[in-house]
Amino acid sequence: MATVDGARLRDSLLEMARHGATPAGGVTRLALSDEDRAGRDLLAAWAREAGLALRVDDLGTMYARLDGSDPALAPVLVGSHLDSVPLGGKFDGPLGVLTALEVVRTMRDAGLRPRRSVEVVNFTNEEGARFEPAMLASGVLAGRFERDDVYARRDRAGLAFGDELRRIGYLGSAANRPKAIHAYLELHIEQGPVMEAEGLPVAAVGGILGIKWLEVTLTGQAQHQGPSPMRTRRDPMVAAARIVHGLRDMMLEYEDPAVGGVGRIRAIPGVMGMIPGQVVLGANVRHPTSAGLAELGSRFGELVRRVAAEERVEAAIDQLWHVEPTFFDERLVALVESEIRAQGLPVRRMTAGAGHDAQYMAQIAPTAMVFVRTVGGMSHVETEAIDWDDATIAGNVLLGVVRKLAGA
Amino acid sequence: MATVDGARLRDSLLEMARHGATPAGGVTRLALSDEDRAGRDLLAAWAREAGLALRVDDLGTMYARLDGSDPALAPVLVGSHLDSVPLGGKFDGPLGVLTALEVVRTMRDAGLRPRRSVEVVNFTNEEGARFEPAMLASGVLAGRFERDDVYARRDRAGLAFGDELRRIGYLGSAANRPKAIHAYLELHIEQGPVMEAEGLPVAAVGGILGIKWLEVTLTGQAQHQGPSPMRTRRDPMVAAARIVHGLRDMMLEYEDPAVGGVGRIRAIPGVMGMIPGQVVLGANVRHPTSAGLAELGSRFGELVRRVAAEERVEAAIDQLWHVEPTFFDERLVALVESEIRAQGLPVRRMTAGAGHDAQYMAQIAPTAMVFVRTVGGMSHVETEAIDWDDATIAGNVLLGVVRKLAGA
Repeated sequence: MATVDGARLRDSLLEMARHGATPAGGVTRLALSDEDRAGRDLLAAWAREAGLALRVDDLGTMYARLDGSDPALAPVLVGSHLDSVPLGGKFDGPLGVLTALEVVRTMRDAGLRPRRSVEVVNFTNEEGARFEPAMLASGVLAGRFERDDVYARRDRAGLAFGDELRRIGYLGSAANRPKAIHAYLELHIEQGPVMEAEGLPVAAVGGILGIKWLEVTLTGQAQHQGPSPMRTRRDPMVAAARIVHGLRDMMLEYEDPAVGGVGRIRAIPGVMGMIPGQVVLGANVRHPTSAGLAELGSRFGELVRRVAAEERVEAAIDQLWHVEPTFFDERLVALVESEIRAQGLPVRRMTAGAGHDAQYMAQIAPTAMVFVRTVGGMSHVETEAIDWDDATIAGNVLLGVVRKLAGA
Repeated sequence: MATVDGARLRDSLLEMARHGATPAGGVTRLALSDEDRAGRDLLAAWAREAGLALRVDDLGTMYARLDGSDPALAPVLVGSHLDSVPLGGKFDGPLGVLTALEVVRTMRDAGLRPRRSVEVVNFTNEEGARFEPAMLASGVLAGRFERDDVYARRDRAGLAFGDELRRIGYLGSAANRPKAIHAYLELHIEQGPVMEAEGLPVAAVGGILGIKWLEVTLTGQAQHQGPSPMRTRRDPMVAAARIVHGLRDMMLEYEDPAVGGVGRIRAIPGVMGMIPGQVVLGANVRHPTSAGLAELGSRFGELVRRVAAEERVEAAIDQLWHVEPTFFDERLVALVESEIRAQGLPVRRMTAGAGHDAQYMAQIAPTAMVFVRTVGGMSHVETEAIDWDDATIAGNVLLGVVRKLAGA
């Protein structure tokens, strides 16, 4: 029985990680940067070596195709992304792309000719770290973003997505976008601590949490700290603190995997001796159901309004992003579970907390994901790590799923 | 009876405010900047016009002297500072310098020759907005800072205090520092809302709150927000929020004028989708007594340790600054009060919440301050304002005090 080559997969991951490598062992490979181009060139070279036909679409997304025996059948797409956040890890994204490549390499080496074509996919700009928001390329495929809007998006240096795509030589054709898609599969690190805690190397993913990004602007009265009696203050820092704390306590009333927290906060002017005139905080809440997400949004709004009134500050809430929960294709998820079971492993259906290209792909094709245990649950950090044995197990699960779907 | 010329005082304040004027009506006149030089040149020109002898010491502090009839007597110093914070107001500092000038102009115009000399003083870098910490020049006079250390302090652009002092042409001689000082008087806006609330145009100041600047570094675990269950998080943002809120609630247990708050906060990396790995906050606590200040510091430490333990984050507290409470000279404060009473006004003894050069001067000379009501209690903002009538009243109070002290 064909199995993936864990050593080859590991070597590929480590070679890919040299492009944008950071001194502390991580990766900075922002979308459409020189490092991204180098990573793409490496993937293209590997595709050629494996005899795969490479297409690049008008968003720069790469498709490396193992031809099926029946060209009339829609292909199975398997992939993820090669771009990273600044000072990110070696696995968030590349593990999915390169495990897909390993699956195809294995099938080819074993002479397994599938009926359906299998395409290894590298989506452009999944992270949204350089061009906001995240998942721009899969979002265009799903009709959620307009291509020309995406081309016009600029990074902090003022460079446009479209110009940078052309500059690195990965501006392809709209004709190269996938047409009919039989299924989309994405393997990814969990990025959380649940599987490690439960001793699971791999898991099926049933869906993705819905998410709201809520920016709260609290405006009080900027004053010198020293001569401002406590009871006269209209201090937005205190209001912000009560909101951060209140959100956490509210979230503790919900069961996992619902989560919420504040990732960024800014005080203006933000100097030691002044009560700030304004504090802006970025909160996000996530829930597996649409009704739950709506409830979190409305309860958060009540919290903000109550605290603002009590602290006598003005509050404005700006919903920067809203994504409904995603439910993956039940048949595909069950297939992933049966392949995990076939490896002699226990089955646990996870809900992804982070966004993935699979979220948009699920809107246009039957989709599922496979999660791989993440050491310490840590991701988006240079020390992001996996157990190499887990990658091999995950590769074999993915191989099994792809063979069943593609008919090989 | 001689009285100050309120119109001349107002005109001088408005002319000074043109140097570094901001579109919204405020002033940005950072210490040793071109704007500061222009303000100093204006003060020097006015001193010449008034027949005063100008000295500049080795810290750039300016002394404009109205000669007394008895050169053997120590002079009365009256002043404040001309530098501002970025986007500050027209009165924080200049009101004290220019009211002192107006007092001397009035004495001269009225032919009042004092027995003691009277010196109008402009201290360098009171704000500490460009070169940290605040009150560098008066601090050197009081022996709290070393001159050469001060020269070596750099602004954010890397420019050194000593180089900038020479560049703007105000590097004078150590021989020009004051020797014996009979008294130091400083008139300043209150910068708080108390006098406005109590209907007091002027007030005597009995002392200055002691202060601690406490920087707290909270280190948790940076993780992706989405896949991190609430109960597994070690979120320094939540810990910071509980400390900000806890400090406020703690301060409400104390009577005015004790105050405390958090002026700055920084989350690292500080992006929406990540639980920050670290949050650094800048807290300050102030109390009128030494024992009270020590208690605030120790209770704040307990708060930080308790929250950090409960949130499972590491906490470090760095005391960036500590100044003991200042108690002004009782005889001088009583003299200010008697001159306020002489204007037919009620007497209220304030405690200054902010630092002033008077704080260091009190360590080397009998010192007192006069406060002027501040519209809305707002300071360090472009809309900082006073009632012009209050300035005239304050000028006459200061004139009365100076005449009594200098013998005129």
